[in-house]
Amino acid sequence: MKKLLIAAALVAAPALSQEEPQGQPSPNEIVAQAAPSEWVAIPAQDLLVMTLAPDRDGKPRRAVIQLIPPPFSQPWVANIRTLAKAHWWDGLGIVRVQDNYVVQWGDPEAEDEAQARALPEGLVATSDDDYTQVAEILLRETPVPSSKRRKSGTTTASAREKDLDLVATGVVVRADPYAQFSKFRAGWPTGNALDEISVHTWPVHCYGMVGVGRGYSPDAGSGAELYTVIGHAPRHLDRNIALVGRVIEGIEHLSSLPRGTGPLGFYETAEERVPIESIRLASELPSAEQPVFEYLSTERETFARYAESRANRRDPFFIVPAGGADICNIPVPLRRVAQAD
Amino acid sequence: MKKLLIAAALVAAPALSQEEPQGQPSPNEIVAQAAPSEWVAIPAQDLLVMTLAPDRDGKPRRAVIQLIPPPFSQPWVANIRTLAKAHWWDGLGIVRVQDNYVVQWGDPEAEDEAQARALPEGLVATSDDDYTQVAEILLRETPVPSSKRRKSGTTTASAREKDLDLVATGVVVRADPYAQFSKFRAGWPTGNALDEISVHTWPVHCYGMVGVGRGYSPDAGSGAELYTVIGHAPRHLDRNIALVGRVIEGIEHLSSLPRGTGPLGFYETAEERVPIESIRLASELPSAEQPVFEYLSTERETFARYAESRANRRDPFFIVPAGGADICNIPVPLRRVAQAD
Repeated sequence: MKKLLIAAALVAAPALSQEEPQGQPSPNEIVAQAAPSEWVAIPAQDLLVMTLAPDRDGKPRRAVIQLIPPPFSQPWVANIRTLAKAHWWDGLGIVRVQDNYVVQWGDPEAEDEAQARALPEGLVATSDDDYTQVAEILLRETPVPSSKRRKSGTTTASAREKDLDLVATGVVVRADPYAQFSKFRAGWPTGNALDEISVHTWPVHCYGMVGVGRGYSPDAGSGAELYTVIGHAPRHLDRNIALVGRVIEGIEHLSSLPRGTGPLGFYETAEERVPIESIRLASELPSAEQPVFEYLSTERETFARYAESRANRRDPFFIVPAGGADICNIPVPLRRVAQAD
Repeated sequence: MKKLLIAAALVAAPALSQEEPQGQPSPNEIVAQAAPSEWVAIPAQDLLVMTLAPDRDGKPRRAVIQLIPPPFSQPWVANIRTLAKAHWWDGLGIVRVQDNYVVQWGDPEAEDEAQARALPEGLVATSDDDYTQVAEILLRETPVPSSKRRKSGTTTASAREKDLDLVATGVVVRADPYAQFSKFRAGWPTGNALDEISVHTWPVHCYGMVGVGRGYSPDAGSGAELYTVIGHAPRHLDRNIALVGRVIEGIEHLSSLPRGTGPLGFYETAEERVPIESIRLASELPSAEQPVFEYLSTERETFARYAESRANRRDPFFIVPAGGADICNIPVPLRRVAQAD
């Protein structure tokens, strides 16, 4: 009897039997063939290493977060580096786990002025004007010609294949309910809006993206309270909360935590919270302990082939290629290239 | 200091302080105001109660699955009822947990003909022709007039608001990379394709949807091996794997399980597998133990208002309404109306 399975999202299907049919390469097989020059190193100052207390069996739990680079970083990423250098999160904890939504960490006593941990010197104040600023980034880029844009509602299967265009400047996804179009830029998924002379662009809330918790506007958050997405992309948060990075390793230590039973998935007792042993900038670790990661350039040929294959699966398991993909279903390939521990 | 939080996906934001601003109602507040007549009872023969072994602290773990009704059910749902009536899953287990993808359960020995549990009599054989059949369901419905369809790539913010149309026959989402349009039908999210005379429709892989594991085509799976989605909607599986239902309660007992470390997230040892104590059709339970659930009609006014508010958040937390939503980010409201245990 053949092993029953469903197709792999992120790893190549293993050879299960002699019966496995031959077919086109899977998305991961395409990535595996990328030239070394297509992989881009992530600077150590853009990596955060988050060490949680070991689990009940004593197994270590560590996650690595990549901070978002300019022009998307805005004041929050600088604040996060300041907080990490001050070892501000050490001894705090995971405070909230809401199913199909987010895991959130920070100071459990943040509400209580007498008990709250003091923030370090040098944090930059933020406001919701900063979101506007993010949405107003103007790129010196030729706008997509109107002849290339989505034309008509009388869409046929072959027209839908064009929803994902491999334009000279990168991979563009046309059908996006949350933006005029979405596009990968320097390794990050973005939403985009065109006017006649410029492109407005912003990072989007895909699985694993990290953002800044905040109160009601105009409070835009300091960066001390962070969350990561552990469910279906909550794209309605785009441009409403600052995105500052993404978990690139170890998200399973966050996504598999017990869900909180309080409102919004907050843990109700101190015992439920998972202690954070430390959060460190990789650049502050001894060089032998610094993790080294690369992402696959989103502006090179292999990524375009990978994205196209995510949108039109032709590897043996599939019967009907979709003819399209949403930007959060085309995760940017990342890899660890040096093992520090 | 105000409690730092990020907006709730599925529950209303609690009153945190005197400072909370007044605003438009949230999606959940809209649902709370639905008339009793807008809630539709789910028949007991469409509910499966899945009882896992208690967790390490002795807490019970139970999930409820709603089976998909005709015309989407096809042969698989009948097979699942046959398997449940035979108590076929009792004593088997969760065999696979892949992060941001699926939890899968069934017979861990399915690969080994000598060890595999025999399937009950009466299962209907399926093949990938059945998928074609699903895609070929023709509905007696007036096709969306071409004047109402997406018109042009020169999309403006106001045009994008129309991506989510509240047409007479229900809520339609225009911008869907995986279908010409998506639409709610009798409580289920569907993908759709039009030709000149008919509408082809199929259920789609949102968070919590349950599908049938299979091998390579033409094997379409018997229904004995099932999975549920625990991450971003893997819509590339639509029309490639049979969908048979959705988890409507207790998915946190599945989504928070430790991830498997084998290929595709399979557990590598028997000890890791969570035992299934039983899976029962609710209609076979004593009536006092039968759970009773309702879903909010997707063809009535409150659901249309709810969907519109999911696409354009105006409750106090939000600054920029998105102007659209993808179909998997508009979860159909469900509620338990009688507590059986």
